[in-house]
Amino acid sequence: MSHISEPTVRRLSNYYRVLEEVAAEGKRMISSQLLAEREGITSAQVRKDLSAFGSFGRRGLGYHVEHLRDEIRALLGLDRRWKACIVGAGHIGSALVSYRGFADQGFDVIAVFDADQDRVGRTLEGLVVRHISQLGPKEGFEIGVIATPVRAAQEVADALVAAGVQGILNFAPRKLKVPASITLRTVDMTMEFESLSYALTHTSDSGPRRRRSAPRRRA
Amino acid sequence: MSHISEPTVRRLSNYYRVLEEVAAEGKRMISSQLLAEREGITSAQVRKDLSAFGSFGRRGLGYHVEHLRDEIRALLGLDRRWKACIVGAGHIGSALVSYRGFADQGFDVIAVFDADQDRVGRTLEGLVVRHISQLGPKEGFEIGVIATPVRAAQEVADALVAAGVQGILNFAPRKLKVPASITLRTVDMTMEFESLSYALTHTSDSGPRRRRSAPRRRA
Repeated sequence: MSHISEPTVRRLSNYYRVLEEVAAEGKRMISSQLLAEREGITSAQVRKDLSAFGSFGRRGLGYHVEHLRDEIRALLGLDRRWKACIVGAGHIGSALVSYRGFADQGFDVIAVFDADQDRVGRTLEGLVVRHISQLGPKEGFEIGVIATPVRAAQEVADALVAAGVQGILNFAPRKLKVPASITLRTVDMTMEFESLSYALTHTSDSGPRRRRSAPRRRA
Repeated sequence: MSHISEPTVRRLSNYYRVLEEVAAEGKRMISSQLLAEREGITSAQVRKDLSAFGSFGRRGLGYHVEHLRDEIRALLGLDRRWKACIVGAGHIGSALVSYRGFADQGFDVIAVFDADQDRVGRTLEGLVVRHISQLGPKEGFEIGVIATPVRAAQEVADALVAAGVQGILNFAPRKLKVPASITLRTVDMTMEFESLSYALTHTSDSGPRRRRSAPRRRA
């Protein structure tokens, strides 16, 4: 399959999650209508996205749930394991170390680093926090996760690149510079807050959604 | 200012962060070129985005840092406070309670709820975790943060809506259904993982970025 756009990859992620749920419910087939409904998009979009996989959909029957799930899993690279390390053992880093979703998606966190001597030596989910100076190419990390304060993020990104990672997942709200050969994804909570703040501020302007006092009970 | 698209709001968030940094460095003026460089976009895009604010930019001089920062802050609604509650006192919820970014962006977390009796009564950053059954409209929550497992997320969203929140920030990897009057933003880490996994898998296909053994040292 040739290049797939970022929005399409995101929709495939969503279909994958729906298919996992539906498979767990024991259903064998799913219609494009149902997939569309769960995602709030049109069924035409679903059929277009899934047509890339060849003709799984059968008119009147829909898609074979397990088959489609496995195809999307393989496409997203979720059928293999990645060796990952986390840099930053603060709150976010600690949450991530114990985040089951990492393992579910094939990320094996095999090391945690921090620059703070107070944190070095502590144990998080069975991993001893090591000093950042020990981060190097020997352990063959494929993915590095940045969970440090903003001011340290670029330096850590450079260290991860030097250590040979292929991909970086960044939780610091800062645009990072990495070589073109490195895949970078940023989870920017700050931006979601600001987007929410913007939306609330501007819907407030128009009145009906702003109820600062005596909120109406809706249920 | 009329409606601004979601991508523009995101770029404004980024400019805001750069302006805060530059202001902290004591700089008085900034050029569209420098703003563009920090964000990896064209200076024409920067000028287009900022033209909406009126003519702050002066040819050859650039933008007045503090003035522009304050204008963007007001536009994003960061110059006021929001009363927020967090539902879910697990790892993500705990990380969020102590996340300074919340307060910086005007979100005052004034309550934490959980359904698990083992967590109820514990103290997180000075807040006693309360049972979810106590979530109601009396406290005037404006924003609800969902940090629960996926299976509880929709039920919690319904409870937040019933409690009168105007906005929901969702950390559970699930599309939620809320009334059209409610602003919903989702921070989907799962999707970023999968996007990273997809990108790494498919760059691996073509060879040069895949170095499973003996990673080349680059620094």
